[in-house]
This record gives sequence, C-alpha cells and structure tokens, in this order.
Amino acid sequence: MPDHTESLDPLRNFIAALTRLVASTSNEEVLLREGRKLLAALIATDEWLPDDCARAHPDHYQQYLLHCDPLERFSIVSFVWGPGQKTPVHDHTVWGMIGMLRGSETGQRYEQAPDGRLLPVGGVVALRPGDIELVSPGLGDIHQVANAFDDRVSISIHVYGANIGAVARNVWEPETGLSRRFVSGYSSKTVPNLWDRSSAVRGE
Amino acid sequence: MPDHTESLDPLRNFIAALTRLVASTSNEEVLLREGRKLLAALIATDEWLPDDCARAHPDHYQQYLLHCDPLERFSIVSFVWGPGQKTPVHDHTVWGMIGMLRGSETGQRYEQAPDGRLLPVGGVVALRPGDIELVSPGLGDIHQVANAFDDRVSISIHVYGANIGAVARNVWEPETGLSRRFVSGYSSKTVPNLWDRSSAVRGE
Ligand SMILES: [Fe+3]
Ligand SMILES: [Fe+3]
Ligand SMILES: [Mg+2]
Repeated sequence: MPDHTESLDPLRNFIAALTRLVASTSNEEVLLREGRKLLAALIATDEWLPDDCARAHPDHYQQYLLHCDPLERFSIVSFVWGPGQKTPVHDHTVWGMIGMLRGSETGQRYEQAPDGRLLPVGGVVALRPGDIELVSPGLGDIHQVANAFDDRVSISIHVYGANIGAVARNVWEPETGLSRRFVSGYSSKTVPNLWDRSSAVRGE
Repeated sequence: MPDHTESLDPLRNFIAALTRLVASTSNEEVLLREGRKLLAALIATDEWLPDDCARAHPDHYQQYLLHCDPLERFSIVSFVWGPGQKTPVHDHTVWGMIGMLRGSETGQRYEQAPDGRLLPVGGVVALRPGDIELVSPGLGDIHQVANAFDDRVSISIHVYGANIGAVARNVWEPETGLSRRFVSGYSSKTVPNLWDRSSAVRGE
C-alpha cells in the first residue's frame, strides 16, 4: 500500500521540474508555456494535496504555501475557498498560473480606465477541475476571483513568478478606483514536510 | 523591533547561498570549503532557529528538517539532544557538516577493521557553539554522537549533501560489527514556513 508520503510524488515532481525550468530560463513566455504543461500534469490528480493545506476558514479564503523556491523565483500556493468566499479586485505584478483542483471558481478581469476606475473586461469565466488560467502584467493582471459555489469548498493551485506572499501589490475598490497597497502573506506558519520519503526508501 | 519573521533572515540567506553553491559545483572539496564558511556565519548567532525546531523529546534525539533542496542536493536539519541522548554508531554515505549551535555534543569516530568490527579512531571530540565538524565517505564517515550534557538540551545544525532523511545508510553494533540498514526520516510532518516575509515588506 502506498503511504501518505508516497502520494506526495506528483507535487515533488512538479517542484523539481519547475526548479529546473526557472534555472534554465527567465523568459516569461517560455516559463508560462512549459510551466502550464507541468501544472496540467499536477492537477490531473488531487490525492497529493496534504489535508492541512485543504482546510477552509469560516470567514475568508486561505492561501497555504506549499513550496517557495529558495531563490524566490517562484512559489506554489493552495487557495482554499469556503462557500461564497472571494478575493478583492487585485493584481499580482508577476506571472501567475491558476490551476483548478477541486470544485470551481469564477474570475472576472478588470482594466484601469484613464480616469482611474476599474472596468470589467470580458465576462465571468468559470474554471473546472483541470482548467488553467494565466495572469501577468503583460497578459492582464487585475482580477477578482470567487468560489463558484455557495455550499461547498473549492481549491485551486496557484503558481507565481515570485515569493507571492511577500510581494507588494494592489487591491482596488473598482467603483472609485481607490487602491491600497497589499502584501498577502500566507495562512500558515508551517508548510508540509514534502521531503520525508523515508517510508518508501525503507520499502514500507 | 524586528519581528519573528525578520529573525529568519540568517537561515534564508544560508539557504539561498547554499542553493547557489550546489548549482555552481558538485566538487565535494569546494562544497565543504565554501559551505563551511556559510555554516560558520549561520551559527554565529542562534536567535533565528524557530522554537518548533528546538524542542527536545524525552526519549530520543530529534531531527527537524529546516530545508530540503528541491533537487535533493542538500538538506538542513536541526538536531536536538535531550539530556544524555545519543545516536547509534552510524554512517552518512554523503558529505555532511555539523555546526554546534547551543550546548555541546561529543563525537567518536570509528573505522571498520578487516574482521568487520568497528574500532574507535582518535579520542572523543567535544564541539562548542560555533565549532564545525565534517564527515564524508572520503574524510571518515562513521561516528557516534552524544549530548555532552546529562542535564540540559544541546542543539547542532547539520547540513548534508542529499535529502538525508531518505538516504539508506547503516548503523552498527561496534563490538560485533553487526550492521543494520537505516533510513532516519525526520521528526516532524511540517517544516517552518521560512518564506512569509510579509510583515517586513509591509514595514511592520
Ligand atoms: Fe489573483
Ligand atoms: Fe552523524
Ligand atoms: Mg496514498
């Protein structure tokens, strides 16, 4: 029987492949093209997500750090949406990939008008498990994301081109265009120990 | 006032520098020479060690993973020795650096005789805070380590040239030379989130 530790293999493989990718290029187009394939493989199954990183909070969405590249070239975060929870309108300032793992989330893009107000661009897009959405300053970086469900938890896996919890970015009140500086941090003071492969090596 | 997160800077800086070092060379002599300087700087102060990785267990020593390189080229572990606790005689199979952080530990080297028995080599060496000891298959890889104190906790920071918790290695009964395959694992299912620099970025 594979134990819990062995089930982390997809996540470890993803981390190793992304580490090699960011070491090989800093070209955003290449990172997003190749990174997207790797993320698609990761979210093709979901039993690898540690339970501690799948817990909803009653009052607000959770962002659990799964892995931060030690040179802070990328980070991987589990976003857990309780029923009806949503982000403010926000940007990222770096490239990002959103891969839907469980449930569904909706996204609405925004652009800033010359008078400063934020205007919706296109319609609401719903992500289903396996779907991937990209963001970046070049592709469109401002959006609002929400759980598509008001009666259950949804989870998406986000990958960003920086240590996203420590990036100074922006949230907006769309009607007025008023913005506020925003540093998200992370929801937990620990991350799962992804590297204890001892049971598998022992042959247990 | 620096907060807890800012105090992790020495550990983050060490991880980043070692990451760059292992990306630049796989020559063990260079890794140990340069790595030793980095480790010396790390253990020159000790307020950076998270409390969760400084807790002794009443029955046996603890080995808390602080960081594993995502390509498993190195790992950093906090060894916490309760009063009187010690390891069996063991090897590592990869290079290692032991940096004394708090208290003191003693080490005894062994070599395997032609008849299989393990014989002590040299005397017992005591490490004091700031001292560093090296191990590797080339330099001498078999030893037994113990808390030098029977009335207080000692802590050393170990760096190995692999994901040490998942390495198949050996423990011995020195009198008979009987050995047993040994995979240490780690003492905790979580590691500290070293990357939440959000308070510092916010200017808090
Ligand atoms: Fe976003
Ligand atoms: Fe040892
Ligand atoms: Mg399993």
